[in-house]
Amino acid sequence: MPALPDLVCSECAAIYPVASLAWRCSCGGLLDVVDFVLTMDATALPGRSPSLWRYTEVLPIAVDLTVSLGEGFSPLVPSRAFPHVQLKLDFLLPTLSFKDRGAVVLATLAKRLGVTRAMVDSSGNAGTAMAAYFSRAGIDCTVYVPESTSPGKLAQMRTHGATVELVPGSRADTSAAALLAAGQDGVLYASHVYHPYFLHGVKTYGYEIWEQRARSLPETVVVPVGNGTMVLGCYLAFSELVAAGLAERMPRIVAVQASACSPLEQAMAQGLEAPVAVQNGATIAEGIAITAPPRGKQLLRAVRATGGTIISVTDEQIAAAHRELADEGLFVEPTSAVSFAAVRAAVDRTYVSDSPTWAVAASLLTAQFVVVPLCGAGLKSLTR
Amino acid sequence: MPALPDLVCSECAAIYPVASLAWRCSCGGLLDVVDFVLTMDATALPGRSPSLWRYTEVLPIAVDLTVSLGEGFSPLVPSRAFPHVQLKLDFLLPTLSFKDRGAVVLATLAKRLGVTRAMVDSSGNAGTAMAAYFSRAGIDCTVYVPESTSPGKLAQMRTHGATVELVPGSRADTSAAALLAAGQDGVLYASHVYHPYFLHGVKTYGYEIWEQRARSLPETVVVPVGNGTMVLGCYLAFSELVAAGLAERMPRIVAVQASACSPLEQAMAQGLEAPVAVQNGATIAEGIAITAPPRGKQLLRAVRATGGTIISVTDEQIAAAHRELADEGLFVEPTSAVSFAAVRAAVDRTYVSDSPTWAVAASLLTAQFVVVPLCGAGLKSLTR
Repeated sequence: MPALPDLVCSECAAIYPVASLAWRCSCGGLLDVVDFVLTMDATALPGRSPSLWRYTEVLPIAVDLTVSLGEGFSPLVPSRAFPHVQLKLDFLLPTLSFKDRGAVVLATLAKRLGVTRAMVDSSGNAGTAMAAYFSRAGIDCTVYVPESTSPGKLAQMRTHGATVELVPGSRADTSAAALLAAGQDGVLYASHVYHPYFLHGVKTYGYEIWEQRARSLPETVVVPVGNGTMVLGCYLAFSELVAAGLAERMPRIVAVQASACSPLEQAMAQGLEAPVAVQNGATIAEGIAITAPPRGKQLLRAVRATGGTIISVTDEQIAAAHRELADEGLFVEPTSAVSFAAVRAAVDRTYVSDSPTWAVAASLLTAQFVVVPLCGAGLKSLTR
Repeated sequence: MPALPDLVCSECAAIYPVASLAWRCSCGGLLDVVDFVLTMDATALPGRSPSLWRYTEVLPIAVDLTVSLGEGFSPLVPSRAFPHVQLKLDFLLPTLSFKDRGAVVLATLAKRLGVTRAMVDSSGNAGTAMAAYFSRAGIDCTVYVPESTSPGKLAQMRTHGATVELVPGSRADTSAAALLAAGQDGVLYASHVYHPYFLHGVKTYGYEIWEQRARSLPETVVVPVGNGTMVLGCYLAFSELVAAGLAERMPRIVAVQASACSPLEQAMAQGLEAPVAVQNGATIAEGIAITAPPRGKQLLRAVRATGGTIISVTDEQIAAAHRELADEGLFVEPTSAVSFAAVRAAVDRTYVSDSPTWAVAASLLTAQFVVVPLCGAGLKSLTR
């Protein structure tokens, strides 16, 4: 069995074996995975199962068939409203959100390392994904979530047997509570934000777009952004595909925030390298209500490197997009509707006309080929 | 574009063009589709997209890409608890139940026929599937459901813009209300029970099992049964595969009811040709609480023809199976847990020992290769 690639600090370049369960460098820097990607045998792809493990050469760990639930290769379908847009139905993964792409990698890692306990903090979907996959792997899992988390997501976590710690206050308070608990001996902090193996699971989303579009990349990918795992996953995938000579150029990444909580959008608009400090504003897009994304600098660098930008949409626009997607037959979480809301604003020219980021985004969102992910199922966030 | 195959009465052999919108023969008999299956080009399969439309030669209508949501080819994964069992994750379809397989066919048909209004009755999942697909096809849809239908399913239907008629009383009362409304000029009664095109959509489930198991069929398929659309879909698929020389023999179909509502199980136990009259008993398996399945005789014939049988499990067994599946990482509807409950009872020998149907089922459920469908997502039936 091949060795597991090490982790490397993005600040001081210190190396940590992944078996150390390190999730942050002692210098405080964030960890990435060292370069490890093997050349993908593109000719072998047609004979492989339609799951994310078909991209085995570019994943840091091999599939464990006792952990996998056949996740990945979600449908890519045309939008009815926008002929230039394809929708990727990434809520059709086993726990009904794209977070399964990373969760299955971390649960596979934990099993291979012999870890018996894991913990994670989440606004909901990462927690449900970890609860399911760690249960399947036979590993105890504790999930820290804000007390405002949707009842459906809480039910999912508890049904899978996870210990759910409801934290009063904001998502930031939940992160703080988790950081206090992280780092216990022998416990894997299965953070979708800090653990870089997670991002390599998410990047399969980008490989699938490439393969499903007859091995070509679209001009623009429009992604909701909070902690930014999907943005960074896309960036990894597209960079690797270009480096391997399998694609000619990167798509532009347009990342979308809720205007009530937009630290990255404001930083982009002001030309800053780090997220702006913001207060937690109420938004129906609970999955991206992140005031201080730890990987904020990386996110800004990644989006800029593609020639993309970061914009925001209002809750009113999100709610309208949510309804419009349902008309198309697609019932998703409000968080999943932010990208569609952005496309709608660009097409109808109803965006904030003096916004410097929208000035860039409007043409990218009306490019010839645009892909929009739908990340979470509508039943996940039902309130009543 | 090839002609659409006609409908034929199973009692008097009268023929109806599908464009007539007939859903039952004037003699009262049920309609089937006339023989139409073309030989499937099995060599072409590897190059096709992983959706149910890959089996185009055996479907009564061709894909309409403006209606399809990429449905089908759900994962087939090993059970952790039972090494001889594979679980087919058929809740990973666009509206989170297997009913999408038939709904997409009926919505495609309606669009091709130029129909502008459709109606259906449902215990929930067929209604959510029809609501979504008819909305995508731009066709008005009315759904009749029991007033006890899970709030999540109602929310799905309403979000997709369907008119929801809540009918007081039992599922049978809902059917009666729908039958009164059916047959209006120009309105398609998109019944998953009566319209036989629906069953040909569902049969893709059986073709996928065959293809995903390296083009072989398992010894036993264990299927929840209420109205029996999945049983009949499986029977169609397996018959066609054997007739085409693509499989050597039919799997045995073991159909499972909730013991509180078991008209088919009782008929099988007593050697009868038609379902036994039963009262509506309360069960957590809301999707199969059908007291008088219209296709009951067909179901009994089909199951017997495979050498299979029909059994029942208690709500207590279903609840335990539901928890055990969640431990495996799979959060499903209680209705989806009945097959797993049956396997558990067979393996642990906790079935009703003097039941004539269990005497047959016990060995079939412990055969070398057994496939269990998981038909609906757990969030669909969440109550709180």
